[in-house]
Amino acid sequence: MKVLIIIGSDSDWPVMKPAAETLKQFGVEAEVTVASAHRTPARVEKLVKEAPERGVGVFIAAAGGAAHLAGVVASHTVLPVIGVPINATPLNGMDALLATVQMPSGIPVATMAVNGAKNAALFAVQILAGQDARLAEKLKEHRATLAKEVEKKAAYVASQL
Amino acid sequence: MKVLIIIGSDSDWPVMKPAAETLKQFGVEAEVTVASAHRTPARVEKLVKEAPERGVGVFIAAAGGAAHLAGVVASHTVLPVIGVPINATPLNGMDALLATVQMPSGIPVATMAVNGAKNAALFAVQILAGQDARLAEKLKEHRATLAKEVEKKAAYVASQL
Amino acid sequence: MKVLIIIGSDSDWPVMKPAAETLKQFGVEAEVTVASAHRTPARVEKLVKEAPERGVGVFIAAAGGAAHLAGVVASHTVLPVIGVPINATPLNGMDALLATVQMPSGIPVATMAVNGAKNAALFAVQILAGQDARLAEKLKEHRATLAKEVEKKAAYVASQL
Amino acid sequence: MKVLIIIGSDSDWPVMKPAAETLKQFGVEAEVTVASAHRTPARVEKLVKEAPERGVGVFIAAAGGAAHLAGVVASHTVLPVIGVPINATPLNGMDALLATVQMPSGIPVATMAVNGAKNAALFAVQILAGQDARLAEKLKEHRATLAKEVEKKAAYVASQL
Amino acid sequence: MKVLIIIGSDSDWPVMKPAAETLKQFGVEAEVTVASAHRTPARVEKLVKEAPERGVGVFIAAAGGAAHLAGVVASHTVLPVIGVPINATPLNGMDALLATVQMPSGIPVATMAVNGAKNAALFAVQILAGQDARLAEKLKEHRATLAKEVEKKAAYVASQL
Amino acid sequence: MKVLIIIGSDSDWPVMKPAAETLKQFGVEAEVTVASAHRTPARVEKLVKEAPERGVGVFIAAAGGAAHLAGVVASHTVLPVIGVPINATPLNGMDALLATVQMPSGIPVATMAVNGAKNAALFAVQILAGQDARLAEKLKEHRATLAKEVEKKAAYVASQL
Amino acid sequence: MKVLIIIGSDSDWPVMKPAAETLKQFGVEAEVTVASAHRTPARVEKLVKEAPERGVGVFIAAAGGAAHLAGVVASHTVLPVIGVPINATPLNGMDALLATVQMPSGIPVATMAVNGAKNAALFAVQILAGQDARLAEKLKEHRATLAKEVEKKAAYVASQL
Amino acid sequence: MKVLIIIGSDSDWPVMKPAAETLKQFGVEAEVTVASAHRTPARVEKLVKEAPERGVGVFIAAAGGAAHLAGVVASHTVLPVIGVPINATPLNGMDALLATVQMPSGIPVATMAVNGAKNAALFAVQILAGQDARLAEKLKEHRATLAKEVEKKAAYVASQL
Repeated sequence: MKVLIIIGSDSDWPVMKPAAETLKQFGVEAEVTVASAHRTPARVEKLVKEAPERGVGVFIAAAGGAAHLAGVVASHTVLPVIGVPINATPLNGMDALLATVQMPSGIPVATMAVNGAKNAALFAVQILAGQDARLAEKLKEHRATLAKEVEKKAAYVASQL
Repeated sequence: MKVLIIIGSDSDWPVMKPAAETLKQFGVEAEVTVASAHRTPARVEKLVKEAPERGVGVFIAAAGGAAHLAGVVASHTVLPVIGVPINATPLNGMDALLATVQMPSGIPVATMAVNGAKNAALFAVQILAGQDARLAEKLKEHRATLAKEVEKKAAYVASQL
Repeated sequence: MKVLIIIGSDSDWPVMKPAAETLKQFGVEAEVTVASAHRTPARVEKLVKEAPERGVGVFIAAAGGAAHLAGVVASHTVLPVIGVPINATPLNGMDALLATVQMPSGIPVATMAVNGAKNAALFAVQILAGQDARLAEKLKEHRATLAKEVEKKAAYVASQL
Repeated sequence: MKVLIIIGSDSDWPVMKPAAETLKQFGVEAEVTVASAHRTPARVEKLVKEAPERGVGVFIAAAGGAAHLAGVVASHTVLPVIGVPINATPLNGMDALLATVQMPSGIPVATMAVNGAKNAALFAVQILAGQDARLAEKLKEHRATLAKEVEKKAAYVASQL
Repeated sequence: MKVLIIIGSDSDWPVMKPAAETLKQFGVEAEVTVASAHRTPARVEKLVKEAPERGVGVFIAAAGGAAHLAGVVASHTVLPVIGVPINATPLNGMDALLATVQMPSGIPVATMAVNGAKNAALFAVQILAGQDARLAEKLKEHRATLAKEVEKKAAYVASQL
Repeated sequence: MKVLIIIGSDSDWPVMKPAAETLKQFGVEAEVTVASAHRTPARVEKLVKEAPERGVGVFIAAAGGAAHLAGVVASHTVLPVIGVPINATPLNGMDALLATVQMPSGIPVATMAVNGAKNAALFAVQILAGQDARLAEKLKEHRATLAKEVEKKAAYVASQL
Repeated sequence: MKVLIIIGSDSDWPVMKPAAETLKQFGVEAEVTVASAHRTPARVEKLVKEAPERGVGVFIAAAGGAAHLAGVVASHTVLPVIGVPINATPLNGMDALLATVQMPSGIPVATMAVNGAKNAALFAVQILAGQDARLAEKLKEHRATLAKEVEKKAAYVASQL
Repeated sequence: MKVLIIIGSDSDWPVMKPAAETLKQFGVEAEVTVASAHRTPARVEKLVKEAPERGVGVFIAAAGGAAHLAGVVASHTVLPVIGVPINATPLNGMDALLATVQMPSGIPVATMAVNGAKNAALFAVQILAGQDARLAEKLKEHRATLAKEVEKKAAYVASQL
């Protein structure tokens, strides 16, 4: 199963690159493309509707401002859609967060933190791990690595006193 | 030219009814329908794309929460789209306001106040008045009426002291 | 695969009941329990760690205020965790939303709208549908039902003019 | 028909310049001036009341802070007024947004995103296109251009993986 | 010297009545009227410009939503203007507060709390007390009364334990 | 050691009563009084400065709006001050929260949740427990009781499915 | 009559300097000092209580964060107190604004915009102008100057097209 | 008695270092470590549960975003927990503030200002001073020093006029 990452604007790419890199690190195939819910609604619809044929099992959609992208993707599929609100306006991402998370009953979007690219990828892996025991194993290893890093940092900080 | 009022949910009807009534009061033909950007994206697209053939010149789109409706309507047309954020969640309409107004460059939505149904209708009339001098005249009369009401209220309040 | 719904307080039950009902409607087995990240951290840890043995594949965690529950659940598992911020304080759920969604890199929580119980269930079904084609079919039927309801409501509202 | 762009302060000019440029690009005549609702109320009133004689059909008013300019312009005319809230104080434009959009019943202001200069121009063109079929055509071409740009950016981003 | 209280809508009267009552209690002459910055800009201008001839020395302006009234009053006078933001929309008065207080450099508005009618009157008295030693005396007595009330309430609450 | 609970207004008493009750339940002596930082600054100063002589070891200060009470109490003592922001204005307690918690460097106030009366008492007990092992024991029992209540509620909710 | 400007911290001086300069420009005598409501409550009380003897007729108090300074000044005097919320924490001045403006009934603070130093001075002049006709004249000249500056800027911006 | 400072990420160290330094300045022994409520829940639990044996009497927990650390620490102990919300996301620390302060009834966290490291240390000293009269004395000296610094700064600012 592949993950399709759709970003609303190429200016979101530096923020979202870690999502693609994290998927790669877990050995999950990913596609990345740009499509705007407002400038290219037909493109979004086509991308989403044809995605299952290409093996896409999860969507990650990232946008800023009136961030409709994840909701519009979700309106065209019953596959899981993960939304990443991007901090791209003077309102510090609060606009994108509310526009992504406050979905009406019936069409859920799994919302991550503002600029939460890496967690979007990890959550996609968690979904796919339900069908792939090796991914579940890798997620556990990843957690162990995170924990070890914390311990290293603890030693560093303790030495600063 | 007609105005098409699209509401995201029938629960928005009591808030939006004054929009339909105001248009009627100005002698502007209006249609009202329900269509959800998320539950019925195809319906929204069809409604918007076929609207010009039926004489629609302006859209009013009202929705609450992650209010994508006005933006999605705007993505399918170059006719003017007026957005009304509805107070429909615990967040007091701030979610709908930001999701309606913070549109990306290229696809404008003319946003009204939270629950600003009547002003949406008046703004539609202002747009149509560019092609219809009688509407412009009626708008001026309406302003004069508003001013007279204020004077009456002023007399009442002054009498309360 | 089962879904385990954990609510932070029994006062959240009326808001979260639709999550349990929706899962039932889709034929997905669900457990519901109360556990507080702060009052019963050991209970949360035990519930989460023993859940896989009982066939749990997805968690739904709902809490208000400083809503740490979903994050604490996520800290004990690599299974997908869906968070529902509950409107339970004078701050209208904004506190619960930010405390649920702004998770640090490494530990994602799939956040739903404030009080978004039903969508949490639907998203759980979307995750499980990756391993169960019948669920995917039911989700499509559900979408069709939603669309039909919108059309009925459209007819009603149009008749009100 | 001309568009009159009024900015509350010359410091708003760099943000609003794209509005003037966009109008030019569409072949719509534009005037730009500075007038403050608070420092020069008489100037605003005179500008607005004399504008129709000079062929002005739409106003764009941009201001920051307690952004009263668009509302004050609207109080002097029944022509359409488009408001652009400017991010000009420590409050990140939230003050200008609320002061522009939350207009009372009777006097609408079509509010754009914070710093949404270009969309203000596009919306003015959409209004004028009701009386000018060539503008409608240009708007459709503009949308097609936007869509092509998105496709180019999609290719670029896909190549970055 | 008189105080002129201008309210943007007669619906603000129940909130603002304590302002009029407080002025009366201090023996300060007050006028109350309704005038809308948006619906009756000419009325506001006339009221403000003619006020000094009638002996007005201080203005109190109260409005909700995009509360421009105090700012517009201030644009027509160099007399002190006290603004009262009214809680009159779903946004809980935050819109009126920001629209009243965030005035640009050059035209101050002395802003009170949301719905702070009584304090507006007290501040008007404080201004007038600069020219009237008896008012200053009454203000000191008022403070003493406030302090005594607190002591009574303290006794009551202590008795509740 | 006693706890002195100061509330800014007798209208805060129903919200703060659980603080007094909780202290009683732990066998900690408490006084409750009303004193306003603004209406009775001398009373606040006197109360705070004389408190140590009467055996007060911890202060709890509760106020709404521009909640200065806890900060003013803290300015007169180096004993621990616990602040409780009260939801008492249209702004839902956000004003009281920020006015209580955002203390400048040098003068801390230990801030609780909006309306968090009971936790203020519990935190006072936690402070006093440093000098009183029986209180520490009671706190542990209280936690055990909380945990048992959660288990009972879990059983109830599970039975509702 | 003099104006006493009290700033809560010397770090607020660069923001508040224009207040002192504006007073000077109007020929109004001003004193500037630093006093913290929390670090030096006795100093604030002494400054405020002795001020009338030195000819102070108006206070300007500026502080950031939990900005209690203006409220504490107001608690010690019945002279007019003008509050300036300073943007001095990560919360962008929203904390200082709410802590300054949301004063309880009985003790008003005339609140200016975040960082609104110059307007604080102008409002002080407006208060003093009630007793000094020359100040009123200067305020009118100042308004005329502001208006002329706007016209110059209008010419500049018009030339940029 | 020692103070244990736990920071959620080593990136919080520069913000929290003044807490450690302030404790040192008061002669209070401090440990600093890194532990994440989400990445290392077991580490947090172990640290907190073993702390009393090592003489820890107060915890300081600092985290950004969905700042659960202080709440999770508090869930494992009845010792006082002081929470410091860190400004670490685009939302300016409002997320960390609400996630730290809005604790449910039963488990208090004494919350400081956003980035309020130094005050966290001072509050810890205030708690410990209940058992150590020398600390109380040092706190009073510290206050006197703060007051003297204010006076110096007052002299400097007064000289700037």
